[in-house]
Amino acid sequence: MGKQEEVKLLGIWASPFSRRIEMALKLKGVPYDYLEEDLENKSSLLLALNPIHKKIPVLVHNGKTIIESHVILEYIDETWKHNPILPQDPFHRSTARIFAKLVDEQIVNLGFISLAKTEKGRDVLIEKTRELIKCLEKELAGNDYFGGKTVGYLDLVAGSMIPFCLERAWEGMGVEVITEKMFPRYKKWVKKLEEVEIVRDCIPPREKHIEHMNIMGEKLKSV
Amino acid sequence: MGKQEEVKLLGIWASPFSRRIEMALKLKGVPYDYLEEDLENKSSLLLALNPIHKKIPVLVHNGKTIIESHVILEYIDETWKHNPILPQDPFHRSTARIFAKLVDEQIVNLGFISLAKTEKGRDVLIEKTRELIKCLEKELAGNDYFGGKTVGYLDLVAGSMIPFCLERAWEGMGVEVITEKMFPRYKKWVKKLEEVEIVRDCIPPREKHIEHMNIMGEKLKSV
Repeated sequence: MGKQEEVKLLGIWASPFSRRIEMALKLKGVPYDYLEEDLENKSSLLLALNPIHKKIPVLVHNGKTIIESHVILEYIDETWKHNPILPQDPFHRSTARIFAKLVDEQIVNLGFISLAKTEKGRDVLIEKTRELIKCLEKELAGNDYFGGKTVGYLDLVAGSMIPFCLERAWEGMGVEVITEKMFPRYKKWVKKLEEVEIVRDCIPPREKHIEHMNIMGEKLKSV
Repeated sequence: MGKQEEVKLLGIWASPFSRRIEMALKLKGVPYDYLEEDLENKSSLLLALNPIHKKIPVLVHNGKTIIESHVILEYIDETWKHNPILPQDPFHRSTARIFAKLVDEQIVNLGFISLAKTEKGRDVLIEKTRELIKCLEKELAGNDYFGGKTVGYLDLVAGSMIPFCLERAWEGMGVEVITEKMFPRYKKWVKKLEEVEIVRDCIPPREKHIEHMNIMGEKLKSV
């Protein structure tokens, strides 16, 4: 990598969407400048770089702006080709992408709505969430990671979102959604993930994160 | 391509999500069997192949199942590498993917909700839709297609969705959302698209489609 390369990431410490980008950059060994955003008071840089969505993450590479976490992950994988994030086989690539959409569209929606609900409404959503997590559990059969023997695309997407974000929110509410008994492969996968340095380095600090998710849940309830 | 290749597509004649897959297969010259689905009465094959989402399009290639139209387009491009659909440069690839998301998430949502509204509510949504279509108009500067000199990823995604689906729905309601005066490049692009054989072959029949979209709009209103 040339000395003149500029890699800048706009993110939020508690956001799985920017945390997974940090994991990917670390996996590639790409040095980057990290700029913490405040969603209550967005920087003029964020508004200038992402005027349509006004959201993080935003990656700036040598003056080029890339948004949307899945698109940024693909960009990183295509730009720095060593330590591939996506599998090489087209069918395995498509499976990783399909499950990533399942996590970021369906599981996230159910998970976050569950934060806003009273106990009864929550239980229904949690049961639906478990049904979807069963698909992930199945996908882990015979593998350490979704990427096989090493962490890959779906590990970064699902890892940043489920164990190190949603589960913390549920924990803050005193609900155990994903138990060892129901999801033994998933639980083993989380333990393995925590052993991976580039993942561990990007997990938001636990207590502060649970507190943050609690505040978010209260805000959602009052909407 | 070996004689033993099996390529099957489950779709719906009026759906931009499966029409764009047909365009891509034709662009690559890949022969395929097309199976028409009925959303009111889903086939057991569809339910077996896509048990989580139960949605079209579904591509089956030599026994492997791929779902989600963006994921299928990437799979097709990675499996049959001639006549590339996505640009080669990582940044241009990311731009095509970001705009494809803009079309299929934001523009579609606004467009379809507008079908369900009374005149006043509709006008607000249509104005918002125009704001987003301005981004596409800008992107077409100096180019025949989003793909440059030939049709590519974003042409298939936006083409199947906007001129040959949403605009027909608006036309059925008697509303002109995208005018020549506001969007001259877009209008030129649609004319060019209609000249491309693989696109023209996959455009749903006009009158039947407008009628279909009218019925959909009425159904949405009664929800």
